[in-house]
Amino acid sequence: MKRTEIRLAGEGGQGLILAGIILAEAAAVYDGANAVQTQSYGPESRGGASKAEVIISEDEIDYPKVNRPDILLVMSQLAHDKYIGDLRPGGTLIADTSNVTPRAPEGARVFELPLTDISVNTTGRAIAANIVALGALVAATGVVSKDAIEKAVAARVPAGTVEVNLRALNAGMEVVRRPATGSGDAH
Amino acid sequence: MKRTEIRLAGEGGQGLILAGIILAEAAAVYDGANAVQTQSYGPESRGGASKAEVIISEDEIDYPKVNRPDILLVMSQLAHDKYIGDLRPGGTLIADTSNVTPRAPEGARVFELPLTDISVNTTGRAIAANIVALGALVAATGVVSKDAIEKAVAARVPAGTVEVNLRALNAGMEVVRRPATGSGDAH
Repeated sequence: MKRTEIRLAGEGGQGLILAGIILAEAAAVYDGANAVQTQSYGPESRGGASKAEVIISEDEIDYPKVNRPDILLVMSQLAHDKYIGDLRPGGTLIADTSNVTPRAPEGARVFELPLTDISVNTTGRAIAANIVALGALVAATGVVSKDAIEKAVAARVPAGTVEVNLRALNAGMEVVRRPATGSGDAH
Repeated sequence: MKRTEIRLAGEGGQGLILAGIILAEAAAVYDGANAVQTQSYGPESRGGASKAEVIISEDEIDYPKVNRPDILLVMSQLAHDKYIGDLRPGGTLIADTSNVTPRAPEGARVFELPLTDISVNTTGRAIAANIVALGALVAATGVVSKDAIEKAVAARVPAGTVEVNLRALNAGMEVVRRPATGSGDAH
């Protein structure tokens, strides 16, 4: 019966659709769960906003819409401001503090992590911030197994970038497990 | 009020998820419509099946599930056999006859096209068959504009492959407009 709703939100070019596909495939192909992965495009997509949603469930998923995410990743201030009110009470917020100043609702588990800066420091480029985010999300929530997310990342990222993306994934996991002072606190 | 439901089905590795994303972005980002793009992963995904669904609508899309596709693309026999019964009466079937022997229901518009062979002949590789399929689908149905699908392909395919993918797209359009004898018939 357990059903987890996840929304990944930010801007076009941040790789959130790929992150959603990887997360869904980790759950379904490698962890043996059911998953649905969705992108909705409305007027905001023409303004550069991007959003991917994933539902993971032990059971078949009849209703594929995310209304109250259990887990919300925000990688732009606009996405934060638009979706922070949707977070389920007691849900988990992961905010990329390289781009976002979060204002989480009371009772939320909050991970304030400089995901884009970690990507740059680990891989030399900002473009792997989506994979850093996946590492942080999985370490913070355990929504899929470490083994599954590693396999799904390796299967989906462009040829020749597997090693660097696995480094990015691991950096995201590590920052949740061993937060640096002033970041990574769950409070 | 017009709402078009599209299902793209085949095997993992055929690029159907990317095709779904490109189609949704053509509709939403470049044609100004609303679109939802979904992948559902169940036990069949662990057996290698792959399915992407797109809904395109002038209005906001409240119900994001495809039950009776107006347009069905099948790129494997398994996908054909599983989904052919779902096609809406009077709907459009596009079958990759490089892999599929279709048995369409009466009244359907049927395009029997050797999409994978066309990909090999046009680009030297089978991997662009998903883009050939998009060209055929757009030429057969007009669900998005030619301009929009070209821009969406160019924006989403890997760097350095834009030209070859636009050739694949065009080849798919051409085979619908000017079918070779024995293929491409709408009957």
